[in-house]
Amino acid sequence: MNTFVALDVGGTSMKGGLVAADGTVLLAESRSTGRERGPDAVVTAVGDFAAELAGRAGNPPVAAGVAVPGIVDEAAGTAVYSANLGWRDTPLRALLEARLGMPVGLGHDVRTGGLGEAAHGAGRGRGDFLFVPLGTGIAAAMIINGSPYPGATGAGGEIGHMVVRPGGEACACGQAGCLEVYSSASALPRRYGDASLRTEDVLARAAAGDPVAARVWEEALDALADALTAATMLLDPSLVVLGGGLAGSGERLTVPLAGRLAARFTFREPPPLALAELGAQAAMHGAAILAARALTGSNV
Amino acid sequence: MNTFVALDVGGTSMKGGLVAADGTVLLAESRSTGRERGPDAVVTAVGDFAAELAGRAGNPPVAAGVAVPGIVDEAAGTAVYSANLGWRDTPLRALLEARLGMPVGLGHDVRTGGLGEAAHGAGRGRGDFLFVPLGTGIAAAMIINGSPYPGATGAGGEIGHMVVRPGGEACACGQAGCLEVYSSASALPRRYGDASLRTEDVLARAAAGDPVAARVWEEALDALADALTAATMLLDPSLVVLGGGLAGSGERLTVPLAGRLAARFTFREPPPLALAELGAQAAMHGAAILAARALTGSNV
Repeated sequence: MNTFVALDVGGTSMKGGLVAADGTVLLAESRSTGRERGPDAVVTAVGDFAAELAGRAGNPPVAAGVAVPGIVDEAAGTAVYSANLGWRDTPLRALLEARLGMPVGLGHDVRTGGLGEAAHGAGRGRGDFLFVPLGTGIAAAMIINGSPYPGATGAGGEIGHMVVRPGGEACACGQAGCLEVYSSASALPRRYGDASLRTEDVLARAAAGDPVAARVWEEALDALADALTAATMLLDPSLVVLGGGLAGSGERLTVPLAGRLAARFTFREPPPLALAELGAQAAMHGAAILAARALTGSNV
Repeated sequence: MNTFVALDVGGTSMKGGLVAADGTVLLAESRSTGRERGPDAVVTAVGDFAAELAGRAGNPPVAAGVAVPGIVDEAAGTAVYSANLGWRDTPLRALLEARLGMPVGLGHDVRTGGLGEAAHGAGRGRGDFLFVPLGTGIAAAMIINGSPYPGATGAGGEIGHMVVRPGGEACACGQAGCLEVYSSASALPRRYGDASLRTEDVLARAAAGDPVAARVWEEALDALADALTAATMLLDPSLVVLGGGLAGSGERLTVPLAGRLAARFTFREPPPLALAELGAQAAMHGAAILAARALTGSNV
């Protein structure tokens, strides 16, 4: 069975592993991106980590897959823009293929996570669905026919910047009232008034009867229900898979959210909700699939 | 060159024609659907109209395409639900194939219009784009890779029922604050307070300085800009093609709308706007393409 090198590159750290063609994770480790040394050094660090992993495999890997943040042009193999890593029109796929001497597939982090959930997680066998990681920010991967749909320019899936509260609170993106301002994992402590807390602390206080925490949590659920309703009107997904840090809340998230969706949907049924199954390894699993596709010459 | 029978079935009337494989319209006429005689009679009327058109062709047609309103399952060839025509799980494709003795392609009216604009209209050569007819209601066709994307259950594209004004005016769909309540061709006379007027009358009064008409028009543009911004965040279309009755307003629509989009987009460019080019014949052109695809065994 083929073995692939699979990397999920984040802002400060990157996860990497060896993954078999059936999705079995043979090895998984983490490294720093070393972004303080500049964008070229990050490319070198990614290549070094991939080469190190390849060298440790019993069965030599035949291809590599790499998921990166920011704006990604999968077809061109380019990291178009990454605020955190400093990349701008970086031909990452070609650079890594030259470094590793094997085919490389490049993908957007959230879309690649959705691809992982589609193949081995909560979206298995569910056709077209929406994967929505609720982390520091909020984005979505639209899975259509088993693959993430990037939009015309690779900038699709920005559900976190859909305005759900016109004239609402300012967002870092320049708009006001974006979903992300109310419902991201970082929004809860900030809106509660104590950014040093963790999201789960705010939820615990809400459950314990703290009225401010309860209001913040209810507003997060309301905004998320509004955004998922709007997205469903347009996209009609068969399922919504919730991931990211907030999905760790489990039924404390899905039960009240499903209730709000049921109340909002008037002329059709809401899509069912599911929790992501692969957690922090979703994008690594997806990267292994990108590797497999790179081997057969399919870019996306 | 192959000739196709192409029908666009509406609530009260249907347009039909003979269309050559290169998109040339050889013949175009209209008939009543006779919906007052019930759903089965409408199926008969559609079949009779198609057979009549086929009989009048110099070059016998090799396939037919039919666009219908409501909820349509293109892959199954079923008219799942049409409030206007009374259809419910009607196997329209099989019924028409038996009546006509040729392959039939079935499509949703708005999606088939988008397919027409993709092949022969404003979307020609533009890749993935959004077709948004602004008529009595508002819907959208998402064109992906040259074909309309129906969603997981055929219920996608309901941009008219995205809520843009939470807690806003009631919509017939049961929600409140839907785009359609503010920006459809029927919304303008109603919100102006005189439903007997035509949309263009309200626009003329707005242009002449009537403050109520001006406010209604500005609110329609604001709501439309908000919905298109939200849809772009999610879908990232390369272009938005505006159709339907309101597109007859031309630059009185596109210029202020483009200005509003430019003001709303903060971290990426808005998609360009274009006016539909095929007018009321868009779905007939699309139906001819469905016919051509039915001939080669492709359902969608």
